[in-house]
Amino acid sequence: MVANLGKPQISEKLIDEVKDFIQQGNEQELGKLLEEMMPADVADLIEHLDSDERLFIFKVLEPEGAGDVLVEVEPPVQSRILEDLDDESLSEIVQELESDDAADLVGDLPADRARAIIGSVREDVSQDLEKLLPYPEDTAGGIMGLEYVAIHADATVRDAIHLIREKREEVENLYHIWVVDDFQRLAGVISLKDLVLEPGDRKIREIMNPEVISVHADTDQEEVVHLVKKYDLVNIPVVDDQHRLIGRITHDDIIDVIEEETDEDISLMAGVVNQEITEDSPLKISRARLPWLIAGLLGELISALVISRFETSVQRIIALSFFFPVIMAMGGSTGNQAATVVVRGLATGDISLVKIGKRLLVEMKVALFNGLICGMLLGLIVGLWIADFRLGSVVGVALVVIVLNASFLGASVPIALKKLHFDPALGTVPFVATSNDILGLLIYLIFVTSYLRWIG
Amino acid sequence: MVANLGKPQISEKLIDEVKDFIQQGNEQELGKLLEEMMPADVADLIEHLDSDERLFIFKVLEPEGAGDVLVEVEPPVQSRILEDLDDESLSEIVQELESDDAADLVGDLPADRARAIIGSVREDVSQDLEKLLPYPEDTAGGIMGLEYVAIHADATVRDAIHLIREKREEVENLYHIWVVDDFQRLAGVISLKDLVLEPGDRKIREIMNPEVISVHADTDQEEVVHLVKKYDLVNIPVVDDQHRLIGRITHDDIIDVIEEETDEDISLMAGVVNQEITEDSPLKISRARLPWLIAGLLGELISALVISRFETSVQRIIALSFFFPVIMAMGGSTGNQAATVVVRGLATGDISLVKIGKRLLVEMKVALFNGLICGMLLGLIVGLWIADFRLGSVVGVALVVIVLNASFLGASVPIALKKLHFDPALGTVPFVATSNDILGLLIYLIFVTSYLRWIG
Repeated sequence: MVANLGKPQISEKLIDEVKDFIQQGNEQELGKLLEEMMPADVADLIEHLDSDERLFIFKVLEPEGAGDVLVEVEPPVQSRILEDLDDESLSEIVQELESDDAADLVGDLPADRARAIIGSVREDVSQDLEKLLPYPEDTAGGIMGLEYVAIHADATVRDAIHLIREKREEVENLYHIWVVDDFQRLAGVISLKDLVLEPGDRKIREIMNPEVISVHADTDQEEVVHLVKKYDLVNIPVVDDQHRLIGRITHDDIIDVIEEETDEDISLMAGVVNQEITEDSPLKISRARLPWLIAGLLGELISALVISRFETSVQRIIALSFFFPVIMAMGGSTGNQAATVVVRGLATGDISLVKIGKRLLVEMKVALFNGLICGMLLGLIVGLWIADFRLGSVVGVALVVIVLNASFLGASVPIALKKLHFDPALGTVPFVATSNDILGLLIYLIFVTSYLRWIG
Repeated sequence: MVANLGKPQISEKLIDEVKDFIQQGNEQELGKLLEEMMPADVADLIEHLDSDERLFIFKVLEPEGAGDVLVEVEPPVQSRILEDLDDESLSEIVQELESDDAADLVGDLPADRARAIIGSVREDVSQDLEKLLPYPEDTAGGIMGLEYVAIHADATVRDAIHLIREKREEVENLYHIWVVDDFQRLAGVISLKDLVLEPGDRKIREIMNPEVISVHADTDQEEVVHLVKKYDLVNIPVVDDQHRLIGRITHDDIIDVIEEETDEDISLMAGVVNQEITEDSPLKISRARLPWLIAGLLGELISALVISRFETSVQRIIALSFFFPVIMAMGGSTGNQAATVVVRGLATGDISLVKIGKRLLVEMKVALFNGLICGMLLGLIVGLWIADFRLGSVVGVALVVIVLNASFLGASVPIALKKLHFDPALGTVPFVATSNDILGLLIYLIFVTSYLRWIG
């Protein structure tokens, strides 16, 4: 393994070299090359190869190396590799993975194949899989691993070190050991830093910290992230209903969840499918995005209906239609700004449900101020454009109302979704955008039509 | 300190209780209550109090407790507290902070006050500050801390443990110790797990891993995050030009940077200011959002100009104006989908500049497919609505062109910004949205006007 300083980029040259070795069937040279690379770099490399070339690489990597690479590959590429690998190779790889990675991988397989793999791996591995697979993917149980060190409170530091030695290979990264009572219930924690400073005959009970932050296996993964971030934890133990220690979640799993949840929020807000960044089947991407587009198309037909109801006003002053884009864009932008801040705030926990009233009030104040400025500006421009400053003023006032309405909708829709226990990001932005187009045009046309009726 | 299981929420009851103690001036009871809370929970509590109440709390907390709380408070609240604290209290707090937190805090103060604080703290603290303050905030140097344990390669395990004992208080979280040569140059790493298993007289050189991943102090913080995520690191050493060890970045700093960069991207995409979630001055929020709104308003006036150039077509068939919202929304949504995926992909590193051509091609295929479906649907509806299927077909074809154009713009603008070394998120979404409104309407009106001319 070679250390990587700065940006490790897979070069075109390296890709060509690897392709050459594969074409020559030169397993030896390829093996040497791959051995010098970190698994995450081999994963990057693999994304540039075609299906046969990938299989050749996996043949060359030892089972353990293959597993380390496989978990680093992006999900769409990973599932294609899994389809191509035969069951025997896959079982060998699964045996070498950490328990949480193994469960994720097997959990994503079709049910038949998952059963076949579980049936063919070593017994300790299949037991681990059967422990982990029942937990829903987005809970603490779904992201935890079984590689941890737990010791009885009555043991000594020497016993703890002995246990660490036994688990040296199994538990790759170890920062804390957890302390349990007679019934395997979580009772405390000791950092390795403290452990290393204590004499061998010291009782664990005397040096452990009994105040250990843990999560129940059913806890939602977002809540786990929230705790880890709040208390700057490096790993967090997972317990069952009886507070028995059953797993651990480490910092790298937490970072993965943060990325996953952010991707999900951003995707939902824009109406794109999650993980499509590395998906390269255009058909799959199209299928995922199309529902949002069709919903938007049908939604905007309501806007068309609204305009058609005011046809006479538009016919009387055709220039009224010139300003449809401005009206829509202003309602859209202000609504989107409010929605983005609230969705993100709810996601990071910065807006708790307690502070919602205050947040809404702030949003309305911001809307009033920005609405007034934009209203005056647009009123003046419309007044100049159509040489009618009274109509200009009416348009300006309409814009203030539109901005207030759009901001209220943008801020309150995600809050309402949250209160109804939906994901606040779920379609908030497309929904708010379409609603604001319809309502914005409606408000604008009602204002100008009333004015036109009033002047006769 | 009490362990928190599940969701620790600051209750209204707790807030009222604290407010009562403060009104009664009951420092003793309040002190007891605060002592039982975790600093992050006290920080949450403080966000619900007014300025005088906050100062009272800080008076009650010991300097160290006060520092731990202060670093957990959200930035806008933090800066208000800093304004309220006198220099003496602030110096005491700064002395108790970890070096990176102290530098962040002092770095955010006005220059005069920062100098006063640096002049009044203990000498070791002011030396640390002077080491850290010169680094730009968004580099490895800007986020690193000075609390680490480094040992010479010729030392023994016993020496290492002795050093850890010396630094026990200073280095709160320790997972690895770094190994240096005669010139303080980074030469290796040992995990505490490995250290604890070795006999006391073992030479560090013999057990260290010489392949240690490090970053240069000037490395951009996004690149640091990229490395830590890629190689699942728990901390990463920072080196200078001579490869001398000068600091360390830990997992919690990395999570902070991830959140910060995501907030920044989301904010830039929606045209809202970063960190405004916890900002509650409406005027500051307005000022930050207004430029985007005014830019949008002026941009959409170009749309108004476009429509006005085709006034005769609209006058001839007023129903053409009914479909402005659909046209704008379709261009907007498809452009936004493409832009979101590309911006996010560039941020997470899933789209490298190598794969850009491929990504653009995928986006165009998706656009063609979705454009065809939406075009057929809209063509049919327009045909039915105005009872002219030939005009309907023209609108449908126009929509295909609009969607292709919008997707190209959405995908290529962030890529272009990246190539020009700008932040791809910078205004991509508002810019793409406005451009797509203008171009969408232009394409639509050119198509229908050509058709109207053709049929005479």
